[in-house]
Amino acid sequence: MAVKLGPNQYGKAEVRMVTVDRSGPVHHLKDLTVSTALRGDLAATHLTGDNSVVVATDTQKNTVYAFAKESPVGEIEDFALRLGRHFVGAFGHITGARVLVDEHGWDRIEVAGKPHDHAFSRSGDEKRTTAVTVDGDRAWVVSGLRDLVVLKSTGSEFHGFPRDKYTTLAETDDRILATAVSARWRYRGVEDIDWRGAFGDVRQTLLETFASLHSLSLQQTLYAMGEAVLEKRPEVAEIRLSLPNKHHFLVDLTPFGLGNDNEVFFASDRPYGLIEGSVLRDDAEDAGLAWHTLPAF
Amino acid sequence: MAVKLGPNQYGKAEVRMVTVDRSGPVHHLKDLTVSTALRGDLAATHLTGDNSVVVATDTQKNTVYAFAKESPVGEIEDFALRLGRHFVGAFGHITGARVLVDEHGWDRIEVAGKPHDHAFSRSGDEKRTTAVTVDGDRAWVVSGLRDLVVLKSTGSEFHGFPRDKYTTLAETDDRILATAVSARWRYRGVEDIDWRGAFGDVRQTLLETFASLHSLSLQQTLYAMGEAVLEKRPEVAEIRLSLPNKHHFLVDLTPFGLGNDNEVFFASDRPYGLIEGSVLRDDAEDAGLAWHTLPAF
Amino acid sequence: MAVKLGPNQYGKAEVRMVTVDRSGPVHHLKDLTVSTALRGDLAATHLTGDNSVVVATDTQKNTVYAFAKESPVGEIEDFALRLGRHFVGAFGHITGARVLVDEHGWDRIEVAGKPHDHAFSRSGDEKRTTAVTVDGDRAWVVSGLRDLVVLKSTGSEFHGFPRDKYTTLAETDDRILATAVSARWRYRGVEDIDWRGAFGDVRQTLLETFASLHSLSLQQTLYAMGEAVLEKRPEVAEIRLSLPNKHHFLVDLTPFGLGNDNEVFFASDRPYGLIEGSVLRDDAEDAGLAWHTLPAF
Amino acid sequence: MAVKLGPNQYGKAEVRMVTVDRSGPVHHLKDLTVSTALRGDLAATHLTGDNSVVVATDTQKNTVYAFAKESPVGEIEDFALRLGRHFVGAFGHITGARVLVDEHGWDRIEVAGKPHDHAFSRSGDEKRTTAVTVDGDRAWVVSGLRDLVVLKSTGSEFHGFPRDKYTTLAETDDRILATAVSARWRYRGVEDIDWRGAFGDVRQTLLETFASLHSLSLQQTLYAMGEAVLEKRPEVAEIRLSLPNKHHFLVDLTPFGLGNDNEVFFASDRPYGLIEGSVLRDDAEDAGLAWHTLPAF
Repeated sequence: MAVKLGPNQYGKAEVRMVTVDRSGPVHHLKDLTVSTALRGDLAATHLTGDNSVVVATDTQKNTVYAFAKESPVGEIEDFALRLGRHFVGAFGHITGARVLVDEHGWDRIEVAGKPHDHAFSRSGDEKRTTAVTVDGDRAWVVSGLRDLVVLKSTGSEFHGFPRDKYTTLAETDDRILATAVSARWRYRGVEDIDWRGAFGDVRQTLLETFASLHSLSLQQTLYAMGEAVLEKRPEVAEIRLSLPNKHHFLVDLTPFGLGNDNEVFFASDRPYGLIEGSVLRDDAEDAGLAWHTLPAF
Repeated sequence: MAVKLGPNQYGKAEVRMVTVDRSGPVHHLKDLTVSTALRGDLAATHLTGDNSVVVATDTQKNTVYAFAKESPVGEIEDFALRLGRHFVGAFGHITGARVLVDEHGWDRIEVAGKPHDHAFSRSGDEKRTTAVTVDGDRAWVVSGLRDLVVLKSTGSEFHGFPRDKYTTLAETDDRILATAVSARWRYRGVEDIDWRGAFGDVRQTLLETFASLHSLSLQQTLYAMGEAVLEKRPEVAEIRLSLPNKHHFLVDLTPFGLGNDNEVFFASDRPYGLIEGSVLRDDAEDAGLAWHTLPAF
Repeated sequence: MAVKLGPNQYGKAEVRMVTVDRSGPVHHLKDLTVSTALRGDLAATHLTGDNSVVVATDTQKNTVYAFAKESPVGEIEDFALRLGRHFVGAFGHITGARVLVDEHGWDRIEVAGKPHDHAFSRSGDEKRTTAVTVDGDRAWVVSGLRDLVVLKSTGSEFHGFPRDKYTTLAETDDRILATAVSARWRYRGVEDIDWRGAFGDVRQTLLETFASLHSLSLQQTLYAMGEAVLEKRPEVAEIRLSLPNKHHFLVDLTPFGLGNDNEVFFASDRPYGLIEGSVLRDDAEDAGLAWHTLPAF
Repeated sequence: MAVKLGPNQYGKAEVRMVTVDRSGPVHHLKDLTVSTALRGDLAATHLTGDNSVVVATDTQKNTVYAFAKESPVGEIEDFALRLGRHFVGAFGHITGARVLVDEHGWDRIEVAGKPHDHAFSRSGDEKRTTAVTVDGDRAWVVSGLRDLVVLKSTGSEFHGFPRDKYTTLAETDDRILATAVSARWRYRGVEDIDWRGAFGDVRQTLLETFASLHSLSLQQTLYAMGEAVLEKRPEVAEIRLSLPNKHHFLVDLTPFGLGNDNEVFFASDRPYGLIEGSVLRDDAEDAGLAWHTLPAF
């Protein structure tokens, strides 16, 4: 029997790092979870346990912390690019790197109506994310967000779907539409991009489109959200969205002699619909390795 | 051998309910998780399986939904009191009830700078809570919050602790102090209380005190937070706080020839310190059953 | 306004420790999560930040690890007693301690049908637990288990419950009964008890009673489980059980022209019933502080 | 600006289904979590909200339940194939389907040493999985397992790795090696395969290889595990493994005057190493769409 090593990568996952910029009396916080993964000529360790090619995952972790001190972290995209390029540049047999960063938000606590210099409260569970892939001297940036939970209490219909012998769902012209947005968008190039500005615009565009579109299906909402993002930010080539349909079922109150005009709902956990799709420019550059080893949506 | 039935209760846990007030074009949302538990003369079902005393947990769930339609939900404390008193009043053998409600927050999505009429985004993982206990014609309200995560990047010291043969911790006069606040406070009485106003004040007082106090220990911070709440709201008799010390360890960068002046931290998951305590008025009324079957802190 | 410090405790939570007994070629594993909490005259740190009374939680953690080396860990009850008594004995102002230990199970991997000397697989998510309370020279042991998930596919009925205007549940004489057993039992005394033997018997008795009893209500099952444990092990004074009713709803297949004779079920997440109760000996000693600060069930 | 719809799919996720085979006095249980996703000509709903192409996710859920009644569920691979082919066959515009099934294990409770007819206990958190992709009249089966947690207390070394300025890790010739195995393997073809037999062999081979191999790196262990699986089962074309390195750090007890000869460890949560790789036959057929939209490892 002849077998061989296929695609592989390894690294340190979920390095939790908080940095404090104390250069003035007003502190600034970065709260990141960083995962690095390296690729290259790693056959030796797999086949014989020869680790001369294995940049230890502990070393990768140390590098994350040291880099945060050597120069300001800045935007997560830049930090991830710096890390990825370092690993590929510093070790001849390491030819590729993937760096994932999640950024957790903090707000300043207000004391007597004024934002505090060095006290913060966590702004929620939503994450700003980036996934940077470096391959030789090329690089791709796919940024995103996760766990942005939104809900419309009206302005959503669902009807006209085919009915077969297993169909029981009633058609509706008014339902709650709720989802937890996971989005990843691929940037054209990696230089001279206002990462923070683009992120803010994309996030706001996703929110506004979700809110404003009268929805006939979550698919329609997904496409409209993606299209609006591409319209808003020319540096985005493509966006992928994963939208769980967090069902809110109208409770049947008729046994109790009560009506229920879309007022009282059961928020269900499982199962849930899951709508996944992408929108891209007609002239989008080839994605290259941008999405390599990322979840498909 | 002679054995007997000891304390017991039963009910429906985690009824997920979302209500929409559609009385005008601007919708209002309530997102609640409700758990009911009943007590009383329940020996029959335990000893013989005679269920004539068992108000089915399914019935309890139905009651939650029906009550939300029969009159506006209002504040969670009032809704929990209404439910608890109903169960105790409606069934002779049910002599007590405990109703827990968690409220999940939603913000309006802003579209073109204006809050939307019927589109919302989840405001985070923090919960506003209440635990109402009804016993016969008496009732107690213990309200609270959970998962309010806060952090100070300076203004926290820890030194002067005893050193025994197992002590290795260095003293520090500058550290990150971070915690996830869980608080429960017991109200004096259950009538004529501005539940929402009190909640807002307590929450803001907790935040401001955490931010403002120069901390010598998390215990000192805990006590100051509790004391400030009692000063602010006369209707609060007692407050219990559970504060995990979410350790942020300074990363040793000296192997890399780098200093680290409280700039780069490892945010640790486990283990964590856990500081729990209560502050109460000297003249606080007896707690009665207010805390019965609630976690101790 | 006069306020005061109420009940309080502090410690290190969730110290993750794995020990390996390497005294012979066949290794033995202990995988524990240990949480310590101390009580006593701790007013100084709360009121003024004077930490001369605060045995650092880091010291508590160190003590856990050091004790595991100083003598064999043994049964979790003995280990917790040793730790609790140490803290109360070593520091004059520390008058009480609560030590929680969860034990995670591992099985030996079988290679060619023989158990391996030093390779193991995790035996599931169920935990064996203990909660030891020390107060001065007294001590109490409350042991237990958690996340023991069981299911009966028949032999469970539920009917005869009262019907009010909010009742819609149909009566049934055949349903799935499923729960995740959480149990804590209080021992009489703390000396000369075969902790491991008692645990094994209690666990097996819980399982056998759940399986064997034809159930008319989960309450009846709960009581029978508790009673059987007290019959089996004379050193158990009292047992508390918390049994979520993990609903399995029969799927209505009639729209598809299909029957469903208790064959196809939807396993629901939330809400769930929650049945909590205790069984104790008529002549059970007073519980003292055994349950102090433990969850009520 | 010209944009277009890219890859997309939609379906019902995490349908929780338990089936009971009651054909004899000894009941048999299947506990599955099923997720279906459909692909095809779905542009209409995305672009205009025309749902005439949208087989409702509720219909997909109904189909899962109805299929479980119409004929015995059997092995998860066969059930997933049946579902996937149904969706692709029944709706002209649906050209592809992906069906994921997780199977949760249950053991029979032993009563008086005999396995009970209809009472079960959950066998742990490990899952048997399958991911079936149907495209037109082609189909692929990728089966696997998840959350199989294993540990070796010796027989693992790690040294010889490169040292750069960020390297501090000490070399070791004896460490704990622990991981939670996630594996997916692609079958050659979809007919006449003994799914259950293959699963059992693959699982046992993974365990035995992990246990037996003296490990110089987790990569070496990964490759050996994959190679052994391919040797054992000719119907497996390729296997992908994702192995978190669950670090167990030796506790430094020297401050307490104690040695620590690989006896006392801190089991760390985060960060963790993550080793991912695949092993395939030299002559493996092209994977086609087998891995399409599955996580890369």
